[in-house]
Amino acid sequence: MNERLRKQLAFVLEIDKEKNIFRQTHLSGHGRNENDAEHAWHMAIMAYLLQEYANEEVDIAKVMLMCLIHDIVEIDAGDTYAYDEEALKTQREREEKAKQRIFSLLPEDQKEELTALFDEFEACESAESKYAHAMDNLQPLLLNDSNQGSDWKEHDVSAQKVYQRQRKTALGSERLYQVSDEILQKQIRNGNLREQ
Amino acid sequence: MNERLRKQLAFVLEIDKEKNIFRQTHLSGHGRNENDAEHAWHMAIMAYLLQEYANEEVDIAKVMLMCLIHDIVEIDAGDTYAYDEEALKTQREREEKAKQRIFSLLPEDQKEELTALFDEFEACESAESKYAHAMDNLQPLLLNDSNQGSDWKEHDVSAQKVYQRQRKTALGSERLYQVSDEILQKQIRNGNLREQ
Repeated sequence: MNERLRKQLAFVLEIDKEKNIFRQTHLSGHGRNENDAEHAWHMAIMAYLLQEYANEEVDIAKVMLMCLIHDIVEIDAGDTYAYDEEALKTQREREEKAKQRIFSLLPEDQKEELTALFDEFEACESAESKYAHAMDNLQPLLLNDSNQGSDWKEHDVSAQKVYQRQRKTALGSERLYQVSDEILQKQIRNGNLREQ
Repeated sequence: MNERLRKQLAFVLEIDKEKNIFRQTHLSGHGRNENDAEHAWHMAIMAYLLQEYANEEVDIAKVMLMCLIHDIVEIDAGDTYAYDEEALKTQREREEKAKQRIFSLLPEDQKEELTALFDEFEACESAESKYAHAMDNLQPLLLNDSNQGSDWKEHDVSAQKVYQRQRKTALGSERLYQVSDEILQKQIRNGNLREQ
């Protein structure tokens, strides 16, 4: 086996570890915590099926790959809960270090490609990354909605905080932001999400 | 929310159940059993990174989506272990029924599209489906290799059976078949896979 292929397979084996990185979101039916690989799989399929609602035209293959790889850095950096103020302060630094180590397992050209794709997602400026962020928000929202807001209750998160995060959804898809808003309003009315 | 979007989101929520369908393969580091969503996520990233080894040129977005959705039917039909002769006899019938129910949650055009993509994968005739099958074989092989063949040992599977299954890998990628062969020969030499 040559060096290039050996490196590619080493990376493939390394990312298996993403299946052990658990998130705060629970699977539907009040299931166990979801892991990053499952979340990314779900996001990529959603991205494909809901592409008609993206604000701008997107390269869907690029969006799907972006969704699939956007959490790989968490193998080293761990999952940072969206509403954990302390952890958010160090997130960037932890993820930068992880990005260097993990993508360096790949051959140079693929390291550069995946690093650029990860950076593009983080910057949230391109049409693809804005739409991918909409998926990153909508996916756990749908699971949490199916579980009567249990994840918000567990962490005592307010609607104000949730709406703050959902701003990125609107950047990627106005239509899916409307849907998110409908869901949040319903959960507030049902007493599953406190307003302030 | 209109009927089309309502149906799309119902499908998105339904496929969350794929995360509860566990396979015989174990995660690297002698971890727990892997589930279908994790397997599909891993395959889709591999498909992208290893596309240079496909025998024929492939539409990589199509391959990735095919990888992501190829096991959705197992939500109803359950996982059929590749070396379970009895279960294999009823697999087609169980999966056909599941395909009808699950993809029917989608709007008609997307139901048709995903059904056709699933059927194309099953037929294993197009360049994309042959390459996707190579991923479907290589992914668990790499995990099993990293675990000293523990899945083969647990089910007392012979190299002869494994090689039978790997024929589809060669249809999609001669180069990755060579790699699989190298891995299998190593595992036979190490006493982790019995020859007959």
